[in-house]
Amino acid sequence: MIATESLSLSEIEDLAFRALVNAGTSEENARPLAVATAMTEADGVASHGLAYIPIYAQHVECGKVDGTAKPVVTLPRPAVVTVDAATGFAHSAIDLGFEKLIPLARELGVAVLAVNNSYNCGVLGVHTQRLAQAGLLGIGFTNAPASIAPSGGAKPVVGTNPFSISAPDADGNAALLIDQSASTIAKSEVMKHAREGRPVPEGWVLDANGQPTTDPEAGLKGSMVPSGGYKGVGIALTVELMAAAMAGAALGSVASPFSGTAGGPPKTGQFFIAIDPQATSGGLFQDKLAELIDSVRSQDGARLPGDGRKKCREGAAKKGVAVNAALLEKVRALL
Amino acid sequence: MIATESLSLSEIEDLAFRALVNAGTSEENARPLAVATAMTEADGVASHGLAYIPIYAQHVECGKVDGTAKPVVTLPRPAVVTVDAATGFAHSAIDLGFEKLIPLARELGVAVLAVNNSYNCGVLGVHTQRLAQAGLLGIGFTNAPASIAPSGGAKPVVGTNPFSISAPDADGNAALLIDQSASTIAKSEVMKHAREGRPVPEGWVLDANGQPTTDPEAGLKGSMVPSGGYKGVGIALTVELMAAAMAGAALGSVASPFSGTAGGPPKTGQFFIAIDPQATSGGLFQDKLAELIDSVRSQDGARLPGDGRKKCREGAAKKGVAVNAALLEKVRALL
Repeated sequence: MIATESLSLSEIEDLAFRALVNAGTSEENARPLAVATAMTEADGVASHGLAYIPIYAQHVECGKVDGTAKPVVTLPRPAVVTVDAATGFAHSAIDLGFEKLIPLARELGVAVLAVNNSYNCGVLGVHTQRLAQAGLLGIGFTNAPASIAPSGGAKPVVGTNPFSISAPDADGNAALLIDQSASTIAKSEVMKHAREGRPVPEGWVLDANGQPTTDPEAGLKGSMVPSGGYKGVGIALTVELMAAAMAGAALGSVASPFSGTAGGPPKTGQFFIAIDPQATSGGLFQDKLAELIDSVRSQDGARLPGDGRKKCREGAAKKGVAVNAALLEKVRALL
Repeated sequence: MIATESLSLSEIEDLAFRALVNAGTSEENARPLAVATAMTEADGVASHGLAYIPIYAQHVECGKVDGTAKPVVTLPRPAVVTVDAATGFAHSAIDLGFEKLIPLARELGVAVLAVNNSYNCGVLGVHTQRLAQAGLLGIGFTNAPASIAPSGGAKPVVGTNPFSISAPDADGNAALLIDQSASTIAKSEVMKHAREGRPVPEGWVLDANGQPTTDPEAGLKGSMVPSGGYKGVGIALTVELMAAAMAGAALGSVASPFSGTAGGPPKTGQFFIAIDPQATSGGLFQDKLAELIDSVRSQDGARLPGDGRKKCREGAAKKGVAVNAALLEKVRALL
């Protein structure tokens, strides 16, 4: 039995905010990250919620991220927004970009946002969800330090690179939210097994020679298994094209690690596409979306991506979130 | 040894064009489809090249596709092009849409094309490749009649739904082309095994109760295995959102089959996103793309998606394509 303490979402946001500011983050950079931390805990993704606050604080202190960075927004074309995150947190850079992106997408029917000189953006679906809340279909890509090898090779060239898509219902909620990485399993799961000295199941990692292994340490020195073999590599390359090459950001093959204090800022990227569904579908979008969701819901036992997070979110809004007590102690020590 | 005859790409195009026109297709609808047929044979994807001409001809004759359809182009927003394919061939609808899409994407930085009331668009990468040839990054989605079940369910709700991304080099070629379906294997491979009365390998198909089977007939009555499990379902749903819901096209769950003569027009959809890489990357795109490609090419034995097709294409331009003699006889019988 792990000891937990129940916190409301605003308590989580406040705790994250104060810890980040105390570490040297400006208030305008800390707020979006604190909001996302509460949203992530609400979604039940504990691995990327408060658990990251001590890492973020450490990264501000060691200079891996510039807590007082002032992101620079540019509009190089009528439907294109770019943000130089200036090696600060991704969240405030994305927020500033969305302020321009959302009205442009509504006006023109589609607009894109490219963020470079950025950092780990946490749970990608937290960002695309906000586009759905604005009535737009949102697609997002974010790259990470290399941990997946190309087909036929053994040396990692691309990260576990997730993409996300979020579809709005008529009431401004994300009716369908997909957020998945290119690997079979999250790298954080392998790191957890390594810390605990436990073997990982087969099919999670490969060693430095590209051979299957159940040793998590060998896997972390080798590579992550792409989901579905070469098709997972295709997803990781797609995300790398969008979040790094299209954003003018650092490729995963040269980016510094997201963990630890070495290597300076990772300078990775994010890319978002926001589209007005009413414009492209001739007003049919909501009917088609409802029909698609119903085709799944009408089957006993069938699930849609995001169902688990949605259920957590509904519970969290009413009852708060049970947070690991040892983690809470660690975060409170930062205040 | 299968008997073959060597044809040049223009001979393939001409043969396809005349067979389509002879079946009742208008010249303006037959030409783009004939060009794509030659491009597909050049890429070495014989399953979707001339092999489809007898099916297309049959579908014009039975009314599953309207050979004389006149697609209608609309611009509902400054950066949005929509095409009602009017139950005609996808290829001429996409071509008409691209005429508007390409200049808009260059001017605004991004534009989208949604096609509904459409049909099987053949190899998706043939279309996204043309966006790369125009100097744009192209992303494409196309949906198909349902053959993949949701996680936890057994009844298919989405097709093997491919997506494709094509990245331009500085000379107007597709430097990197990804084109992959959401299933472990193409449905056409299962149909081929069924015709030949051979069992399929485990992991290709599930029966109508969602249980693994090696019987291709049971698989065709059941469902296709999604690549990487629930993540393959996530890809299929992503494509369904874009090509059907966002385009206002028929969902895979209600679309008539792409094969056979029953059910009338499938009315499925396509969706394309075209982005100017120079605008979003601050001019860094070509350097980043070259660096990404080199990170793979510099590893012995490592491959990039599309390498196989590229090699075929280079050979085909010089030496033509070896076409199955029995198939050629079948196509020539249509003239």
